[in-house]
Amino acid sequence: MASSAVNYAKENQQRFLGELKDLLRIPSISTAPEHKDDVRRAAEFCAANLRAIGMENVEIIPTKGHPLIYADWLHAAGKPTVLCYAHYDVQPPDPLNEWLSPPFEPTERNNNIYARGAVDDKGQLWMELKALESLMKGHGGKLPLNVKIILEGEEEVGGESIAAYVRKEKAKLKADFALVCDTELFAPNLPTLCVGLRGLVYTEIEAYGAKTDLHSGMYGGAAPNPFFALIEIISKLKDSKGHVLIPGFYKGLKAPSKDELKAWKRLPFNEEHYRKTEVGSKVLTGEPGYSVLYRTWARPTLEVHGMPGGFTAAGAKTVIPAKAAAKVSMRMVPNQDPDDILKKYTKYVAKLTPKGIETKIKVYSKGPACVVATNNRFIKAATEAMHEVFKKDTVFIRSGGSIPIVTDFQDVLKIPSVMMGFGLPDDNLHAPNEKFHIPNFYRGIESIIQFFEKLGE
Amino acid sequence: MASSAVNYAKENQQRFLGELKDLLRIPSISTAPEHKDDVRRAAEFCAANLRAIGMENVEIIPTKGHPLIYADWLHAAGKPTVLCYAHYDVQPPDPLNEWLSPPFEPTERNNNIYARGAVDDKGQLWMELKALESLMKGHGGKLPLNVKIILEGEEEVGGESIAAYVRKEKAKLKADFALVCDTELFAPNLPTLCVGLRGLVYTEIEAYGAKTDLHSGMYGGAAPNPFFALIEIISKLKDSKGHVLIPGFYKGLKAPSKDELKAWKRLPFNEEHYRKTEVGSKVLTGEPGYSVLYRTWARPTLEVHGMPGGFTAAGAKTVIPAKAAAKVSMRMVPNQDPDDILKKYTKYVAKLTPKGIETKIKVYSKGPACVVATNNRFIKAATEAMHEVFKKDTVFIRSGGSIPIVTDFQDVLKIPSVMMGFGLPDDNLHAPNEKFHIPNFYRGIESIIQFFEKLGE
Repeated sequence: MASSAVNYAKENQQRFLGELKDLLRIPSISTAPEHKDDVRRAAEFCAANLRAIGMENVEIIPTKGHPLIYADWLHAAGKPTVLCYAHYDVQPPDPLNEWLSPPFEPTERNNNIYARGAVDDKGQLWMELKALESLMKGHGGKLPLNVKIILEGEEEVGGESIAAYVRKEKAKLKADFALVCDTELFAPNLPTLCVGLRGLVYTEIEAYGAKTDLHSGMYGGAAPNPFFALIEIISKLKDSKGHVLIPGFYKGLKAPSKDELKAWKRLPFNEEHYRKTEVGSKVLTGEPGYSVLYRTWARPTLEVHGMPGGFTAAGAKTVIPAKAAAKVSMRMVPNQDPDDILKKYTKYVAKLTPKGIETKIKVYSKGPACVVATNNRFIKAATEAMHEVFKKDTVFIRSGGSIPIVTDFQDVLKIPSVMMGFGLPDDNLHAPNEKFHIPNFYRGIESIIQFFEKLGE
Repeated sequence: MASSAVNYAKENQQRFLGELKDLLRIPSISTAPEHKDDVRRAAEFCAANLRAIGMENVEIIPTKGHPLIYADWLHAAGKPTVLCYAHYDVQPPDPLNEWLSPPFEPTERNNNIYARGAVDDKGQLWMELKALESLMKGHGGKLPLNVKIILEGEEEVGGESIAAYVRKEKAKLKADFALVCDTELFAPNLPTLCVGLRGLVYTEIEAYGAKTDLHSGMYGGAAPNPFFALIEIISKLKDSKGHVLIPGFYKGLKAPSKDELKAWKRLPFNEEHYRKTEVGSKVLTGEPGYSVLYRTWARPTLEVHGMPGGFTAAGAKTVIPAKAAAKVSMRMVPNQDPDDILKKYTKYVAKLTPKGIETKIKVYSKGPACVVATNNRFIKAATEAMHEVFKKDTVFIRSGGSIPIVTDFQDVLKIPSVMMGFGLPDDNLHAPNEKFHIPNFYRGIESIIQFFEKLGE
């Protein structure tokens, strides 16, 4: 029989969705300086709702970057304490012309809600708040366990402020476990807990050649070309089979256990379907001898995301640019240390830099991989809660993405994280037409309610 | 003793410069569709002046692209006929933030006029018109020789319309020689005629991978990355020493004669000064065993001008873009056929394209190299005219740039071109802070007057 909290959540679904739409309308793009005020507005929106639903000690915490939000409710004596986490910032929406509806005007189609941040992570943040609201209402103004919540606005740009805050405020944030809602279901209707994440080092290599842009007719053959230098460098960072060539890059990395690899083989994964419908390319690429799940969850990679500089508008301009840049990131797996990788990468790039060119490396973000144990009571309660909502056994997966805060919770606060996420593999994270399947928004709220009720029994 | 025409030119220098400024204020950027009307305005400005100075049969000729302008004055019976050429379109001004004064607000500093198009080619176009005006005034409303003039607005985007027009209107454009003012002096105060140009093939390689932009965390290791594909391809188009690796690229090309190479060695060229003040890089690059002048005038090259796609704004975005592109051009020397080179290039790029990626090649422009004989009477008269203005012997040089129309004049109209240009090596063509040295604008007008007066004797 459904609890009063679950019933409350079911009765208020439409309102919850409407509130989420209001949050999605705020373009809280954390990487774009011109959206700084929007990021702040999104923070205030979340803080106001935390107050409204009865959370206590709500504060908007200023940082060097975008604000953090903290709140708590700590009156469930003898019950466990959860630290809820989500982020209210979003990726940039470009390329804008590929969106079927405007990225910051949430639009319903096919039972999905389309908007930048719909699933990553505003929709999942709002699940947490609405689960807490429902629990308050269903339990006579009380929560079944102690709750601390910390929301950040810099997840998409490296999360520096929350990392510093966690280190500074260990006692304040101390809890028995963390709930992180920023992952996805392995397949529609398949309850899923994520127990592993890759790390990330995101850099920009800037290459400088001549003192000014030069005409390629006049100077082609004598002037150094920063684009060609970047091409020479990056072509030697990874081979055509996806093997990273930075000396020492793979040293000491920890492979998944045999049991974990076996479990991955049992997952409902159709490589051909994945290729066709998710990736939509002629073939899949990557290191031979590793399955797709292995490659994307537990093997390190190196990618190029964009190469600013020179002439990029339509048409032709015969310029040898004075400078060019390349945004290059590396995903890491357990036992690869980001600082060590960055050191090896920086050294190798310097070595590969051709004469006449000067390179500099900017670091945008840096966080290690993380793997969570599956045998703690919190993971078990989460597994049961999702089973009740989905009526199916929960599977354990990893994600190729990076949530550095999970590593911080583990290493700094010494608490395990439950990564309970309700996105779908085709939700277009970081891409045009990002969406969140509306039934999953509701199931997420219900799963969190049941999870917390189980821990409060 | 100076002719009346020369005196008239001297007396009217300030007005001539003022008129040039008006022309420079029109942002006639031929590659930018949003400036189509500005290109048209520049054409109308030139046509109006041709009418005003007494040229006849002035017409603005519509084309598929930007208009051509034609005018003539053909009443010098028994005298030679010149076909004057220049272009009124300009390169885009970006990067805008590097201009010290706005690119379309001509500004005088240090006896230079700074503006996009100042020297390439509006300033030199205006020299031709002002020489014709001065000749008309100095010769009682007549010209000392027969003049046809053709001005184009697509030089910076490949010059397709004029190429077609020259082929269609051979009789109308027939002349004894052409005067092309779009080159530069080898050094300040050194009278120079350009007798060779490199050819150009300008392309854009478009690379397509997944059907949509993907999150590099989720898909890194399985999804093809078009940027990495372009990097792999382009890294194999040219080696680190500047040698182009396209099979058959160098086949049959014609090297300069021993005499020409000897004359180049006598030119006042200081490689260290060139490196420091013109290029401003730590070292010069290019094929070992060839001098700088040889490399930039008579050796083919391959350059990358920009790589649109993915995420290029400030900050980090973890995207594997669905598509990316690279603007790649090749400069060619005599006996390299652009169609043949393009075919070999296209075939090689296809061969280098990694699996999972589809590449397409767009061609923006295509024109062969050209070398002009130095022993005709027109080059001789030009040499003498410049000697009188500069009081120095004229040198013969080549240019690494491309003026496809010179090849068309030679191959289609069967006439030689006199490339008499008054730019300077540090004029920042195609770059921020393009300039034209004002005394050279006046000397150019005077040189053309004397050149035409000599041919009319």
